[in-house]
Amino acid sequence: MHDEIPTPFILIDAQIARRNLASLADYARQHKLGVRPHTKTHKSKMLARMQLEAGAIGLTVAKVGEAQIMAEASDDLLMAYPAIHPQRCLDLARLAKTKTIRVAVDSTAAADRISEGAKAEGSTVGVLVDLDVGLHRTGVQNPAEALALAQYIDKLPNVRLDGLMFYPGHLQWKTPQLDQAMTQIDSVLAEVLERWRASGLQAKIVSGGSTPTASRSHLITRLTELRPGTYIFNDMNCVHGGFVSLENCSAKIICTVISTAVPGQIVLDAGSKTLTSDRCGPAPDSGHGLVVECSRAKITKLSEEHAQVDVRECDQVPKVGDRVSVIPNHICPCVNLQDRIWWQEPGDEPKPLAVDARGRVF
Amino acid sequence: MHDEIPTPFILIDAQIARRNLASLADYARQHKLGVRPHTKTHKSKMLARMQLEAGAIGLTVAKVGEAQIMAEASDDLLMAYPAIHPQRCLDLARLAKTKTIRVAVDSTAAADRISEGAKAEGSTVGVLVDLDVGLHRTGVQNPAEALALAQYIDKLPNVRLDGLMFYPGHLQWKTPQLDQAMTQIDSVLAEVLERWRASGLQAKIVSGGSTPTASRSHLITRLTELRPGTYIFNDMNCVHGGFVSLENCSAKIICTVISTAVPGQIVLDAGSKTLTSDRCGPAPDSGHGLVVECSRAKITKLSEEHAQVDVRECDQVPKVGDRVSVIPNHICPCVNLQDRIWWQEPGDEPKPLAVDARGRVF
Repeated sequence: MHDEIPTPFILIDAQIARRNLASLADYARQHKLGVRPHTKTHKSKMLARMQLEAGAIGLTVAKVGEAQIMAEASDDLLMAYPAIHPQRCLDLARLAKTKTIRVAVDSTAAADRISEGAKAEGSTVGVLVDLDVGLHRTGVQNPAEALALAQYIDKLPNVRLDGLMFYPGHLQWKTPQLDQAMTQIDSVLAEVLERWRASGLQAKIVSGGSTPTASRSHLITRLTELRPGTYIFNDMNCVHGGFVSLENCSAKIICTVISTAVPGQIVLDAGSKTLTSDRCGPAPDSGHGLVVECSRAKITKLSEEHAQVDVRECDQVPKVGDRVSVIPNHICPCVNLQDRIWWQEPGDEPKPLAVDARGRVF
Repeated sequence: MHDEIPTPFILIDAQIARRNLASLADYARQHKLGVRPHTKTHKSKMLARMQLEAGAIGLTVAKVGEAQIMAEASDDLLMAYPAIHPQRCLDLARLAKTKTIRVAVDSTAAADRISEGAKAEGSTVGVLVDLDVGLHRTGVQNPAEALALAQYIDKLPNVRLDGLMFYPGHLQWKTPQLDQAMTQIDSVLAEVLERWRASGLQAKIVSGGSTPTASRSHLITRLTELRPGTYIFNDMNCVHGGFVSLENCSAKIICTVISTAVPGQIVLDAGSKTLTSDRCGPAPDSGHGLVVECSRAKITKLSEEHAQVDVRECDQVPKVGDRVSVIPNHICPCVNLQDRIWWQEPGDEPKPLAVDARGRVF
């Protein structure tokens, strides 16, 4: 069906991707939550529009370069990342002249720069205070700091304090402890919001969520919107975390066997420049992705353009020239390595889909 | 000096890069060895031309897509990788109409496809037999297999048996054992070449080498050319392997501190979409690269756009907005994530340099 397309390439099963979008949209509607998909996963305007058609209230981006691309798909963007460089702050402020632009910050320095950029451009940028709820990556550390930063932002020119943002990236397993952790986050948010209220500040937006926690978002009663990214494709991280099954994975990397010279091993033409070296967070010893055609194969080692696959446990071993499909550990950085991915509607030939915001790391 | 360029970006110190090229060229001249740099490291036509000016006899590429780009810089290309897809074999055979094109294979299936493509295009493609010398990734397994494959290739139309290729990627440490391993490889090559000779076959080319083993190449007396890639830039893999020191690293990733909210930690705007998740082969627990400004800092964790750096051991901790430089574990896949890198001559502003063959994984 796709023999004409040279490997390696990423093939998306349109039916599964649509089902993934619809399923989250249904959940969010039921719980009166907004969905603001993180477009870092696909970096595609076409897929962003599909998410908006499925009911998304706006889009999330990581960087200003991505915001510039996704502004062509949506009028309502959240950059879940501080802009620091003066030029990037100006670029973002320029977008804010015609679009609703919000940005999350965890420092007065970042807030100052956003304000300066917006002042120079004569626009207003919405700001969310980034709160650390357990990942310990970014975010103010407690309700007192959240209040202090909110009060600081509230006094800055050309910015508008819109609320709170958090990212529960440390919650990667669907266990009974997950619900407890979500409830604890809710308590912290309650304390932050109570302090803000007592100081005359409002949080119109409380933005949280990730693909793993998405379906338990209702446990955070203060939440107004969630920002899953991976859910459109899913990957082995999601499978090993227990949130989805293989049938929910819409993205597969199609590879060709290029060598079988070493006994017990096949080599695929997809190395770290295709699969990335990301290990599977929830299952660290699971290799570099799942070979769909033989689940007992193990991708043991990657070079830049080679995947070494131990096939000693496989009943049928592919030959040189055969194609196999791999579900990667982490799909987002894999898509970022391609200029285009391939979208396949049932019964149709795959069609190329531009990765519009690829490489926009700035 | 580079404050105008938004981060993250890769900055090349031109003086160090030129010194790295000259140093290897001197060594190779002294030992009468050809240098055929692997362009997967930089994917830049400009840098390929610089390597040719420094005396390189031709270029190495991994994929046909890269060969198409590098054919603009050189008339003599080795693809150290089998072409399998019929379209790619045709593309390669088309290049062979006007260029010297060679390809390494380890199977009759791959040899057949190269031959078929060349026959269809009416060109001749040179073929090297890929021999496994210890990495156990690709390559025929012993002298008997090397002879059998050479005899098979010798009878195929539109291909020309040119010799042998090997990649000693398992040799990553500069130790006394390295020299012993190189000498052992030489013995295996001697046996292969003796069998070929006895069967009336010649190996005009014996192509080997890697950046780690480059400076010990003379120990493999049968070698005619070496194929280092990383040596133009070097990286923490090379440093930890003991082959170079930090002063030989010409490529640094310039990053900005975007958060200091978590005590004892700074966060840089370079995650796995910039530094890649490649660990340091020779030093597995060394984190995700070296922060040049504070060698006691440790990059403990990467997300897609964040690097978490433990700075508890640092005397001076950078603030939000400050820039720091990181020498990555593995520079090759980092360059592959950028549309351009920045080339800095002494005293000059950095100039952008296109990564011409970026993303050409097919």
